[in-house]
Amino acid sequence: MIVKLINYTPKPIETAFTAARTCYSSEGPASIWSRAKGDSEPAITRDRMHSLLDRVIASGHMSVLEHINFTFSIEGCSRACSHQLVRHRIASYSQQSQRYVKLKERNFVIPPTIRGNDEARAIFEKFLDSAKLAYEKLVELGIPKEDARFVLPNATMTNLVMTMNFRELYTVCQVRLCTRAQWEIRELFVKVKAEIKKIPELSGLADYLQPKCIILGYCPEEKSCGLMPSKSEVIGEGK
Amino acid sequence: MIVKLINYTPKPIETAFTAARTCYSSEGPASIWSRAKGDSEPAITRDRMHSLLDRVIASGHMSVLEHINFTFSIEGCSRACSHQLVRHRIASYSQQSQRYVKLKERNFVIPPTIRGNDEARAIFEKFLDSAKLAYEKLVELGIPKEDARFVLPNATMTNLVMTMNFRELYTVCQVRLCTRAQWEIRELFVKVKAEIKKIPELSGLADYLQPKCIILGYCPEEKSCGLMPSKSEVIGEGK
Amino acid sequence: MIVKLINYTPKPIETAFTAARTCYSSEGPASIWSRAKGDSEPAITRDRMHSLLDRVIASGHMSVLEHINFTFSIEGCSRACSHQLVRHRIASYSQQSQRYVKLKERNFVIPPTIRGNDEARAIFEKFLDSAKLAYEKLVELGIPKEDARFVLPNATMTNLVMTMNFRELYTVCQVRLCTRAQWEIRELFVKVKAEIKKIPELSGLADYLQPKCIILGYCPEEKSCGLMPSKSEVIGEGK
Amino acid sequence: MIVKLINYTPKPIETAFTAARTCYSSEGPASIWSRAKGDSEPAITRDRMHSLLDRVIASGHMSVLEHINFTFSIEGCSRACSHQLVRHRIASYSQQSQRYVKLKERNFVIPPTIRGNDEARAIFEKFLDSAKLAYEKLVELGIPKEDARFVLPNATMTNLVMTMNFRELYTVCQVRLCTRAQWEIRELFVKVKAEIKKIPELSGLADYLQPKCIILGYCPEEKSCGLMPSKSEVIGEGK
Repeated sequence: MIVKLINYTPKPIETAFTAARTCYSSEGPASIWSRAKGDSEPAITRDRMHSLLDRVIASGHMSVLEHINFTFSIEGCSRACSHQLVRHRIASYSQQSQRYVKLKERNFVIPPTIRGNDEARAIFEKFLDSAKLAYEKLVELGIPKEDARFVLPNATMTNLVMTMNFRELYTVCQVRLCTRAQWEIRELFVKVKAEIKKIPELSGLADYLQPKCIILGYCPEEKSCGLMPSKSEVIGEGK
Repeated sequence: MIVKLINYTPKPIETAFTAARTCYSSEGPASIWSRAKGDSEPAITRDRMHSLLDRVIASGHMSVLEHINFTFSIEGCSRACSHQLVRHRIASYSQQSQRYVKLKERNFVIPPTIRGNDEARAIFEKFLDSAKLAYEKLVELGIPKEDARFVLPNATMTNLVMTMNFRELYTVCQVRLCTRAQWEIRELFVKVKAEIKKIPELSGLADYLQPKCIILGYCPEEKSCGLMPSKSEVIGEGK
Repeated sequence: MIVKLINYTPKPIETAFTAARTCYSSEGPASIWSRAKGDSEPAITRDRMHSLLDRVIASGHMSVLEHINFTFSIEGCSRACSHQLVRHRIASYSQQSQRYVKLKERNFVIPPTIRGNDEARAIFEKFLDSAKLAYEKLVELGIPKEDARFVLPNATMTNLVMTMNFRELYTVCQVRLCTRAQWEIRELFVKVKAEIKKIPELSGLADYLQPKCIILGYCPEEKSCGLMPSKSEVIGEGK
Repeated sequence: MIVKLINYTPKPIETAFTAARTCYSSEGPASIWSRAKGDSEPAITRDRMHSLLDRVIASGHMSVLEHINFTFSIEGCSRACSHQLVRHRIASYSQQSQRYVKLKERNFVIPPTIRGNDEARAIFEKFLDSAKLAYEKLVELGIPKEDARFVLPNATMTNLVMTMNFRELYTVCQVRLCTRAQWEIRELFVKVKAEIKKIPELSGLADYLQPKCIILGYCPEEKSCGLMPSKSEVIGEGK
């Protein structure tokens, strides 16, 4: 799977700062925005902007993060994974259609547990060959692609464009960066975070993206993976 | 595919009427509600309620329809179809997980184009056997169900519970009842409408669920299926 | 402010159980639903349903709660409060319109801090008289109601019908039941919870509605009100 | 009211094209994006991109428009208008809080019907003075700002930052650009459209923003304003 951040809200820190500041100030947003960008005086320092964002996130005033959007190219994720992904409803997806696009070569995801087991891998690859063959034959027989695709397995690769705002990304990462998340969707959001981290002006935002245990201060799952102590150890008994 | 309406907002017409009337009246909603149910005087007649709903829908004041919710049991739809279905984001879905539930017998949807073509059907059924066999063998080898499911094809049946409000259902049916919609999701919403139509107190609501051409007065697609004339015939040239 | 639960999803525990069970079972939802209602054998006990819901909520699998909807009549809340309320976007609102409905007598909310201060109260009530008078005069001069309403203050009462699902209610109550929430919207959700608590079959659900400190095990605000210890006391330093 | 487009998705046409093309192509989105920007060969022409968007919008495949976001500074709109505005739930708002920000001078919107009527205007302005005075006195008496604001009228100005995606903007403009929309929110969206129109790379997108009659080919309201013929004239009798 290849994940690339292809587009994002320019000047994201300035944008979120302008939104947050508008709530608590008599100054209009256009003027705050101008000072945040350093286009008018007194300019607002990056330190001050980051410090407001820190407080905003700590206090749970998350809606100001919605003004920052990220658009990702996601290539080669399995249809199993894309079916999970699009269940996150506060985001926009444009996905390669199996109704219109014909299957090409080498278009399958092999799970690590299967890749690492010779016998399983042989079964899997033989099966993939039979799936491709069945698909080709059905298309040759004149079955429409939208029906021939019924033989395509969950392993089939798909491509998506996904736009998600930073508030939702913050929420989704709490669940999907958890070591207990299903491996492929976890890999997807690990890569999403890495893409954001790579860009200097976004790097500070990437640091907010954490599994829920880091944000809560404890692991709320029945068994902790060990990264953080479990809730009962920290809070004690009771709910 | 078996679709059953298992639950819905009681007294739906009274609920939507109370919501609509609240917008235009100094009377409080609890009192309107009581009169709509006939529990206090002067009771509101069903004719008056239906007539207000007619005007509300004709004028596009659709938000009052959101107070009516329907919960459906959907059994035996393909994973191809469920992947399409959950792209309608303004609804709630609880879907059978292939990560936790092991595949059983006879769990596949066969598209009509394949069912009606002996050669295609033979290929399809042989393929399904090989998919089942590969799945069984992977599970036997100790591959976790969440990875073994990578061989399961789009044809694999799934179950869902879906709750959708009437405004969204009205919008979705405009697209999915169109004869150009993909056959399985169209079948799903044809059955959804039939389930609503069966219940006497809901029957009037079912009649609002129509493909978009009926609502618009013309077919906006490039080629009409013939049910309604195309937009260019009705409106003339231009956008 | 008078809040009344006027309608809700029948058999809500059975509905959420059916949704949750569908995810982890090969049994179809229609059959689970039938057994949950006790209409077929083996019937599912209420204890088993509550115990599954407990686990589902503890583990954060909140989406199954979306299938339960509540519809409230809210009368006599201020326009200040309704403006806050409708910012919760995952809900449906039908609100009395000031564009179409003419202001009547005694239609104002007086905040407790003003009610309890004779001087402030005198100023407030004199002001309300002048607002009513200005409104009446503007309407008499032929100014449309939608423009005359520009003199109506935040204190003006409004009515709403609100439908919110149980997942969103669970989320909103975490913020609005906090003692630091603005008093009127807190009063609204205290009454919402009390309405749910009154109905025997919903009483167990009401108990899940808690301010966030009860759910987290600590107060995440800068200063705790004392109900729970602050995060830094429980978790220690660091984020 | 002053509306300024302060930020937007860079290369919006390229972004929407990449999303749309991904659905119908075996080419990955990163590669489409690169060719759309002209960074790799064969570059995609602007004509081809616009022509795909035209078809996408004509056919109702609106979701690809969600990847384009706009952020506006809105200054000096009335609280009456902001209460209407935030009812559009598929958008992000950060609004100046009357709980935290103290009222300043000259902060009121005067409706044109009142501005143009000397007697009404005198009543209105005298009333505004009394509102300001009451507010000042309450604050002096130690009433918290969050309660003193109960005297502030709907005419009070507010500031917002609003981020809305292009699909939602397209939908909202159909309702709010209609000559029958309430004058202030119509003015807001007329200015929103003008701001988009001003920027050369967005100008083509602005042209899609139209009242619903232009999009439908007829006026669906009971009485047409004359811009387009009414539905019954175009479609004939029946629903």
